[in-house]
Amino acid sequence: MTYCVGLLLDAGMVLLSDTRTNAGLDNISTYRKMFTFEEPDERVVVILTAGSLSVTQTTLARLEEAAQDRSPDAPPSIMTAETILQVASIVGDTLAEVSKDISSRMTQHADGAKASMLVAGQRKGGEMRLFLIYPEGNFIEATADTPFLQIGEHKYGKPILDRVVRPETTLGDAQKAVLLSMDSTLRSNLSVGMPLDLAVIEKDACKVSTYRRIEAQDEGFLAMSNAWSQALRDSFQRIEI
Amino acid sequence: MTYCVGLLLDAGMVLLSDTRTNAGLDNISTYRKMFTFEEPDERVVVILTAGSLSVTQTTLARLEEAAQDRSPDAPPSIMTAETILQVASIVGDTLAEVSKDISSRMTQHADGAKASMLVAGQRKGGEMRLFLIYPEGNFIEATADTPFLQIGEHKYGKPILDRVVRPETTLGDAQKAVLLSMDSTLRSNLSVGMPLDLAVIEKDACKVSTYRRIEAQDEGFLAMSNAWSQALRDSFQRIEI
Repeated sequence: MTYCVGLLLDAGMVLLSDTRTNAGLDNISTYRKMFTFEEPDERVVVILTAGSLSVTQTTLARLEEAAQDRSPDAPPSIMTAETILQVASIVGDTLAEVSKDISSRMTQHADGAKASMLVAGQRKGGEMRLFLIYPEGNFIEATADTPFLQIGEHKYGKPILDRVVRPETTLGDAQKAVLLSMDSTLRSNLSVGMPLDLAVIEKDACKVSTYRRIEAQDEGFLAMSNAWSQALRDSFQRIEI
Repeated sequence: MTYCVGLLLDAGMVLLSDTRTNAGLDNISTYRKMFTFEEPDERVVVILTAGSLSVTQTTLARLEEAAQDRSPDAPPSIMTAETILQVASIVGDTLAEVSKDISSRMTQHADGAKASMLVAGQRKGGEMRLFLIYPEGNFIEATADTPFLQIGEHKYGKPILDRVVRPETTLGDAQKAVLLSMDSTLRSNLSVGMPLDLAVIEKDACKVSTYRRIEAQDEGFLAMSNAWSQALRDSFQRIEI
């Protein structure tokens, strides 16, 4: 499993993914699930992936290949698309195509060859946009009413986001919120695991302003995780029924 | 959907269920999902149900009918079984039988005719036991390592239980924990809804010591829910990253 979350805020976008991949519980590996396409000051696109590794790797490989083709008659790619909406379409179409190719070869476990993605980006002069792409290639977009989107094992970490994330949330608080959301998920589902990839895209920067890989032994993360557990237990004791 | 949770603690057992049932989002009703079989001071069995209403109602009807048959040659029922383990077997067998009967008539939506149950009980002189019965009739049991079991929409409400429930948790704290766990679930999933049924079985009482129906406008529950939200937001502000 996987847990990825993206926040679309007034001040920018915050993206977090874990890195654990498993093919059965006895075959666990670490794979990056966050991919950046960037031409600083012109465009930034970050893609987060969940689902079948064969589907997400093939999809990303095709997207990267297409992005490198700068010949005049090449079809629009992530790096040349006019808008982030068009980027979401390109990602969705590629994902659907790869899913179909792979699923057609898997008769027994059709469910295994599915993946979903978060696509966050901004082009110079355009708006910041955040999309969730479904396995079939269709997608939904984050709005002021729903400023966050999640893929993978999303339920354990949702209550904290529901309570604290608003469009006006600062980027500092937003990083705290996604890390605490991930922390709840890590505690409840073994198949979501460290290290984590955290990216912050400040509004109108058109680049990844901050990127941080958080390792299992990261002291800041451990301290935050323990402080949160303690705060929850203290709050629990103070509540009266 | 449904959310039911059962705690097996040193001091007793605590059980909580919601009451919302839906056949599509436009057909929502309230049905009790908590059922008690009791012969005070001799035995108490509480069953919580999740899943297809047709399956759970038919299963409960058969179990109740069997329990009323006190003729000497009647097979063991919930009211006559020697042990709570045997009660779990009887419930599992009946559930599997009903699921099979109903599923065989539903070719299109086989997934719809499934249900799972929690069975909590104690016989005089025996131990308190808490079982989760799967749709196929097999089951697992709560232990000191895993003092709680959940059925239905269980993920939103698990982080708080993971953090505060231990076998030595008092019955008062346990009620608070299951209500806060339910509160997180109610906020995140529309298809889990008030009113709630809360039962407490004190150790060796062999009866339901406390039963409470908590209505949507229950002031104590609302106050607790608001206090918890506020405490979470305050704790969130105090945490540093």
